[in-house]
Amino acid sequence: MRGVVMHAPGDVRTEDRPDPTIEEPTDAVIRLAATCICGSDLWPYRGVEKVQDSAMGHEYIGVVEEVGAEVRTVKPGDFVVGSFWASDNTCVICRAGFQSRCVNAIPMGAIGTQAQLARIPLADGTLVATPGTPPSDLIPSLMAASDVLGTGWFGATAAQAGPGKTTVVVGDGAVGLMAVLAARELGAERIIAMSRNPQRQELARYFGATDILSQRGDEGVAAVKELTDGVGAHSVVEAVGTQESMLQAIHSTRSGGHMGFVGVTYEVALPGMELFFAEINMLGGPAPVRRFLPDLIQRIWDREIDPGRVFDLTLPLEEAAEGYRAMDERRAVKVLLTP
Amino acid sequence: MRGVVMHAPGDVRTEDRPDPTIEEPTDAVIRLAATCICGSDLWPYRGVEKVQDSAMGHEYIGVVEEVGAEVRTVKPGDFVVGSFWASDNTCVICRAGFQSRCVNAIPMGAIGTQAQLARIPLADGTLVATPGTPPSDLIPSLMAASDVLGTGWFGATAAQAGPGKTTVVVGDGAVGLMAVLAARELGAERIIAMSRNPQRQELARYFGATDILSQRGDEGVAAVKELTDGVGAHSVVEAVGTQESMLQAIHSTRSGGHMGFVGVTYEVALPGMELFFAEINMLGGPAPVRRFLPDLIQRIWDREIDPGRVFDLTLPLEEAAEGYRAMDERRAVKVLLTP
Repeated sequence: MRGVVMHAPGDVRTEDRPDPTIEEPTDAVIRLAATCICGSDLWPYRGVEKVQDSAMGHEYIGVVEEVGAEVRTVKPGDFVVGSFWASDNTCVICRAGFQSRCVNAIPMGAIGTQAQLARIPLADGTLVATPGTPPSDLIPSLMAASDVLGTGWFGATAAQAGPGKTTVVVGDGAVGLMAVLAARELGAERIIAMSRNPQRQELARYFGATDILSQRGDEGVAAVKELTDGVGAHSVVEAVGTQESMLQAIHSTRSGGHMGFVGVTYEVALPGMELFFAEINMLGGPAPVRRFLPDLIQRIWDREIDPGRVFDLTLPLEEAAEGYRAMDERRAVKVLLTP
Repeated sequence: MRGVVMHAPGDVRTEDRPDPTIEEPTDAVIRLAATCICGSDLWPYRGVEKVQDSAMGHEYIGVVEEVGAEVRTVKPGDFVVGSFWASDNTCVICRAGFQSRCVNAIPMGAIGTQAQLARIPLADGTLVATPGTPPSDLIPSLMAASDVLGTGWFGATAAQAGPGKTTVVVGDGAVGLMAVLAARELGAERIIAMSRNPQRQELARYFGATDILSQRGDEGVAAVKELTDGVGAHSVVEAVGTQESMLQAIHSTRSGGHMGFVGVTYEVALPGMELFFAEINMLGGPAPVRRFLPDLIQRIWDREIDPGRVFDLTLPLEEAAEGYRAMDERRAVKVLLTP
């Protein structure tokens, strides 16, 4: 099969890789209907995370080709969506809704789903079948559910966005835009998107932002406070992962409010006294997308939400390298790859 | 009047200070029935926090002597308990239960309640009258409610201690011991106190600990995991405030669980990736004791709880310096001062 490999920072190629096979009786193999490039794939692309000849990709939707002997909930021919962490969905952590930290969790990034085929471990716990074969116009939205939508949704849930509340979203990448959509669906009264990019501002408004602020850092915090009687927002989603954006998110949250952080915080060190005197509820990490998948698939199926709009560039898998360049240079919000 | 002043680290004296007066129409002046020394008073005593000729103390109970023209809820002769932050109890942050971050909050430490008399700003929002004049044996417990009990209670609440849950308390100081008591009252099934001091272990058991672990750091985490099917506790209270204890608390919490931190985190910097992959709910800061005071006073009045046991040394105000020494040298858990 063909698949994407990153040989070194900036060096992405689509090349021949071995076809995956059933390795464990709990595995499935799927043929991808779509895959995509994640903002977090830019960490190794830019050399922040180490990489060498790595198969890439952790987002996937497609049709089950083959299942292991113990798989019960999906069968060949089913159209499925899965999360970027394979999880058993039965352990005590999964049952509490934190499948990304399943005691048997397997990161799909170690498998590499930017390919024509992919092995999915723990298929029963990981894959959710759609109600039928989706029409082609739903493919981008179902693709978004695999990570960015679920991640934005987790951020908004962790921030406890809801009726009567003001929600701030720090970060106008795909995850931030999906957090805007999630906050709207969860009923937030006011949704403030922090963005200085006209196209992303427009998308943010499309997904439900009621206000756009272009300031950053302390100025961004001051602008949020001006809109919130000086006390900050009830709910803040952090979807960047830098020191500046984390502190901006913390300072934008009112005491007693909730901050959900879903940007990968590689180079962050939070001063204890900042956390102490902020006195906010914080929850973040790799999103337990599996918790939300059945609900998100249904909303997409019923055409209540249109998260697929977040993909503003579609390329054949063979042109993955151009997709990485477009995201790295911020020419594209998110790139869908067709295998 | 007589009051305690810290002239420099380690230099504590009881000396003449001016009698407080009503400065604002929302003030009250109280005559203290008791005051005490806080673990956080050791920060300046040890030179970690700057100090120069500062009036000391922020915990207080006593009888109202005089009130300003606008004070409505307490009157001269009332026996009152207050928190270490004066708060209006009417702003949006107070109404959400975070009175320690009231938009008009005033730290009582800036006033100094280790004295015979004290001015209490925002008296209506800050002071809670007891049902009557307390019998003398309830004085230590009511004194505890002013800070350490309320702070431990906040930690246990932030950690969402409750029925069916395992709660770990990191720190065997007065606040940690009060968090043990709070976890018991909130219905926690199992309460693990981390302590290597035999006397504090005994107190922890008295207040409700079901298990004692003497390990620290990574060994402490491993011991907690051994007692919790390898996944960590549902609820963890951090009551120390060092880098090691914060990381121990974070690592002792299961993903999706709750960690409440009430130790003052002066020298802490939390690596972003630790928070990201821990994937726990965190809430901490200066405890909004005012939220809990009516309930805590009633429990004490009804003799349901006996937090006063945390005071293991009582001294006259004139001997405050010896009280500081005893706590600094860990000869005493907590020192009550009689004015």
